[in-house]
Amino acid sequence: MSFPTTVRIFEMSPRDGLQNEPGELIPTTVKVELINRLSQCGLTHIEAASFVSPKWVPQMGDASDVMAGISRQPGVIYAALTPNMKGLEAAIEAKADEVAVFSAASEAFTRKNINCSIAESLERFAPVMETARHAGIRVRGYVSTVMGCPYQGEVDPQQVARVAKAMLEMGCYEISLGDTIGVGTPLKAKRMLEAVSKEVPIDRLAAHFHDTYGQAIANLYAVLEEGIAVVDASVAGLGGCPYAKGASGNVATEDVLYLLQGLGIETGTDLQQLINTGHWISRTLSRHNGSKVALARGDCHE
Amino acid sequence: MSFPTTVRIFEMSPRDGLQNEPGELIPTTVKVELINRLSQCGLTHIEAASFVSPKWVPQMGDASDVMAGISRQPGVIYAALTPNMKGLEAAIEAKADEVAVFSAASEAFTRKNINCSIAESLERFAPVMETARHAGIRVRGYVSTVMGCPYQGEVDPQQVARVAKAMLEMGCYEISLGDTIGVGTPLKAKRMLEAVSKEVPIDRLAAHFHDTYGQAIANLYAVLEEGIAVVDASVAGLGGCPYAKGASGNVATEDVLYLLQGLGIETGTDLQQLINTGHWISRTLSRHNGSKVALARGDCHE
Repeated sequence: MSFPTTVRIFEMSPRDGLQNEPGELIPTTVKVELINRLSQCGLTHIEAASFVSPKWVPQMGDASDVMAGISRQPGVIYAALTPNMKGLEAAIEAKADEVAVFSAASEAFTRKNINCSIAESLERFAPVMETARHAGIRVRGYVSTVMGCPYQGEVDPQQVARVAKAMLEMGCYEISLGDTIGVGTPLKAKRMLEAVSKEVPIDRLAAHFHDTYGQAIANLYAVLEEGIAVVDASVAGLGGCPYAKGASGNVATEDVLYLLQGLGIETGTDLQQLINTGHWISRTLSRHNGSKVALARGDCHE
Repeated sequence: MSFPTTVRIFEMSPRDGLQNEPGELIPTTVKVELINRLSQCGLTHIEAASFVSPKWVPQMGDASDVMAGISRQPGVIYAALTPNMKGLEAAIEAKADEVAVFSAASEAFTRKNINCSIAESLERFAPVMETARHAGIRVRGYVSTVMGCPYQGEVDPQQVARVAKAMLEMGCYEISLGDTIGVGTPLKAKRMLEAVSKEVPIDRLAAHFHDTYGQAIANLYAVLEEGIAVVDASVAGLGGCPYAKGASGNVATEDVLYLLQGLGIETGTDLQQLINTGHWISRTLSRHNGSKVALARGDCHE
């Protein structure tokens, strides 16, 4: 057992957290304020927007305005999801510090989600990777469904390893392993990571775990033991689960930070400010706060 | 790392889960049905009632009626909390299969909660232990605040060890270690257990962890690695946290069972029936279901 001394938190709430928010469009000013508040908490990596067709993800339709509106802090990376060339060009135009592409470890999920095979999904990223490289922009890769798939059920860890390796070889600087439906348990997480880390160095891997079955903190503890030092999370657990109404999605950043502090791991992030930010955005969106740490500490009402 | 092959779940919902339920008194018939449903799930240890003055805990005022009303299943232990001699006598009269007493590892908590020192709280149990022994009834011991106290903050693991050892020596067959306010994290849980298991054999210890800070499943994983094989839990996370409104208390049995199944540990308990039972009691009490597994699987509406 050897934990990393520092962990980098990659904050997902402005993108992964808000993209599925039902109802009216969230005002651009709210997104901008959320991102600014998050950077004030000491978070250095924030996925700020998704440059995707507003036909598919209406909540992300103002990505360029969001990127233009934020108060950029020195040392903070404002990242954007770019599923295709058009998205990449808009992200470059909007001065995203880095971009991200995604695939999945499940053929059934890829087929259902983006209507192609995993191999085809990777091929589609080739020009995005090439253009990003020329523009000097780093690309992060997401692999979804690493511990289970809503359509095919079990997912082979070897398949996760193959997709992660392919994304690394295509030029991604880091591969974020997503338990998209939160079905993993700690030993499964360890075994999946063992398979992947044979193909991709562990310092190029991140854990993106959802808390749908209440296991995310335990799963993170298990992979931190293995040396994972980058964790994706979303303040107030913003995001929910598109596969089960009322269920949890992204693990709450506050709860992750509480775990990391308990393990003596440095993050440079202020827990109380993060709790305040989570309460603020939950109130603003009239949404249940999905962080247990935040509920335990109560709403400060600032 | 060596996990136990089987784990005994001690179901807390009828007592620890319901005792703090605000508002109107829960009908005896509902409690009886809850207990009967829990036994149908395959749970073999159920804390069914508390024989305490209804002046202090009104929700437990019908303890004798509850014990008289349940359909006792062979092999199932129906336990009762008995804070004093009067409670013990009533529990024996009501044919409780075993009883339980409690103390705490925090002087401040004991003083505030039962207005005496830890040493005095233990002395008060002496006649209860003696009478139970003569009646041939096993006594379980709870130690509260093993990883933190709402009044004094930090709690010394050595102090937990001393109280646990004292309860064992007084005749308790098992000591349940309670993270009453759910502040623990996995390494803290391991260190606490290491200290206690030097004084009390690990097969006489149980983990009673609350999920107030979202860490209970991770903490359980950590102590299962150390050999803990008895876990207290409450279906639907029934109970809440009396120290923070809206916060979580008892870890949900469904989420614990999902973890255990993922680790390949046998419990003899049926997850789907447990989920159904949690949805049923949550609906019946018009209460939020605190199990993430239950929310992920949805309400079956039976």
